[in-house]
Amino acid sequence: MSGCQIDTSVIRPIRFFNGKCQMLDQRLLPAEEVWLEYNTYEEIADAIRTMVVRGAPAIGVAAAIGVWFGVRDIETASSQKFFAQMKQICDVLAATRPTAVNLFWALERMKHFAESNLDRSVMELKIGLEYEALAICQEDEQLCIKLGRQGQSLIPDGSRVLTHCNAGALATAGYGTALGVIRAAVAAGKKIAVLADETRPWLQGARLTTWELQKDNIPVTLICDNMAGYLMSKGEIDCVIVGADRIAANGDVANKIGTYTVAVLAKEHKLPFYVAAPMSTIDFSLSDGSQIPIEERDALEITHLKDIQLAPEGIEVRNPAFDVTPNRLVTAIITECGVVQGDYQQGLAELIQKR
Amino acid sequence: MSGCQIDTSVIRPIRFFNGKCQMLDQRLLPAEEVWLEYNTYEEIADAIRTMVVRGAPAIGVAAAIGVWFGVRDIETASSQKFFAQMKQICDVLAATRPTAVNLFWALERMKHFAESNLDRSVMELKIGLEYEALAICQEDEQLCIKLGRQGQSLIPDGSRVLTHCNAGALATAGYGTALGVIRAAVAAGKKIAVLADETRPWLQGARLTTWELQKDNIPVTLICDNMAGYLMSKGEIDCVIVGADRIAANGDVANKIGTYTVAVLAKEHKLPFYVAAPMSTIDFSLSDGSQIPIEERDALEITHLKDIQLAPEGIEVRNPAFDVTPNRLVTAIITECGVVQGDYQQGLAELIQKR
Repeated sequence: MSGCQIDTSVIRPIRFFNGKCQMLDQRLLPAEEVWLEYNTYEEIADAIRTMVVRGAPAIGVAAAIGVWFGVRDIETASSQKFFAQMKQICDVLAATRPTAVNLFWALERMKHFAESNLDRSVMELKIGLEYEALAICQEDEQLCIKLGRQGQSLIPDGSRVLTHCNAGALATAGYGTALGVIRAAVAAGKKIAVLADETRPWLQGARLTTWELQKDNIPVTLICDNMAGYLMSKGEIDCVIVGADRIAANGDVANKIGTYTVAVLAKEHKLPFYVAAPMSTIDFSLSDGSQIPIEERDALEITHLKDIQLAPEGIEVRNPAFDVTPNRLVTAIITECGVVQGDYQQGLAELIQKR
Repeated sequence: MSGCQIDTSVIRPIRFFNGKCQMLDQRLLPAEEVWLEYNTYEEIADAIRTMVVRGAPAIGVAAAIGVWFGVRDIETASSQKFFAQMKQICDVLAATRPTAVNLFWALERMKHFAESNLDRSVMELKIGLEYEALAICQEDEQLCIKLGRQGQSLIPDGSRVLTHCNAGALATAGYGTALGVIRAAVAAGKKIAVLADETRPWLQGARLTTWELQKDNIPVTLICDNMAGYLMSKGEIDCVIVGADRIAANGDVANKIGTYTVAVLAKEHKLPFYVAAPMSTIDFSLSDGSQIPIEERDALEITHLKDIQLAPEGIEVRNPAFDVTPNRLVTAIITECGVVQGDYQQGLAELIQKR
């Protein structure tokens, strides 16, 4: 990776420039920081499927890079044939994970660029698609910073903020969504203490949220998922902020499994429950959350931790990776374009129009 | 262990007879079934502290055996001196774990026997105390069977029952409390499917509840603690049943961390939330649950699994081992003496009087 300096003090899970892509292997954190190099779209698809990279916005960024890796090797002079092959590449990337809509959003954006420019040469399409992938990557971090500024006023000085899973720099191109709001609050001079749910089975909270907040010297305390209710009942949590993998047009929120439980607990304790996500997470094609597909992952994620057996052989397991929090439990949805409260159907529609 | 046959088809975590005690090392299940032998009260205290044996009723049984191991070696002809030394032994056992009241109940019962018989010889006291320890052990399994019969009518045929932690044979002398009710429902010919919360950080649900239900051929599905809310929202859970470590006079219930969260979820979804516990779990000296001491355990239980590091070095951790569920969230408390619903203050007081 010569000819370019990377500011490694800023946490960015995807390094994409000069025709190359490296991704921080998030399966190995926090014990090891290993960067893997990618050169083909099949490799990128595999990285998404196996969760080297995870987090809805980061998956979108990786998918865009994957499309670029796929199309740059297409050998044809026909823009139509180029686009036909590009669609097949997009289909492979789309089949990696079902719930996070940013994946499909990024693929659609790449396809839309090509489809809108089929009168151009294949070379021009390739150049344009590399630029588009780079733009998706750059814009993601910038909009996280904007989103953080939009949301930080909701977090009072001195707050003890619970978060679930990792909606941080590691889940985006950089800065983060839920953790972006926290970073913006800290940057505004507020004293914020974060409580991180460990987030079984993949432990994104224990492994990733703690890791990136510790790096940024933001106070963080790790708890198990089943402890948040107890701490709320003792008055030790002031508000909740989480990310999202897909938001329906009515404001129902699909996010990491366990988010719904935290939202119910927040309601019981009359605590604000905030969702922070970029506009690309909102799926206006779905009227409500019941239509969001929920990925069920392998039983081994729950029954084993590396080589350690945690449950008897042959035991039945359910492993839904996401759940849906109904809009009535959401205090506000924070996007880079503004904060929506109350009537999400109308508020989200207005945001997308004035964007 | 000669001269006596054990029916090993029945799950009993403590084998106590012929002056010896073996305990199934519950830290190693389900991967290994290792029986450890105990001969002194200090060893028994260590087994309780390090959770070789766990579960409120089983801790009480182990403590009683510990007292017997301690007093049998006391060398004095004075019953008064014997009792003074016995109290010191009880103090060591009492200091092992703070929340489960059955521990203190068993120690009090042993002390009460000695104190009521100080006119007898030391040899008679020793014989009486061995009998008392055996009785506590025998009675515990018998009362679990009674408790199961009391509670099973609350569980309709075809129910999908969520349980948290392990309130089974492994948490008692045998049969179990919450799982005793399920065993009794199955014995009554009902078709019951159990959902087991894995119960972080110690994984009693993943390791123990699944293990003992699988042995008894009762259908069980393992989930992570953060999945119960999602399954309730999908209509896949019909009721909840848990054990208890201490119940205050007003019916507030201390139980494994996460129980309170499950109770809040049950309320949100209008599902019955049952607590199954022997009368010895009720602490009439405490007017409500706020007075129940909550044990905080070592951070390593959360940051590491055996040698695997799950969180960054030096991260702050909270590890409360129990929480308190207020009586308003409890649909019924099931004991061996009867089922209490509604006014727990009065109902529990009436139960103890007619006992």
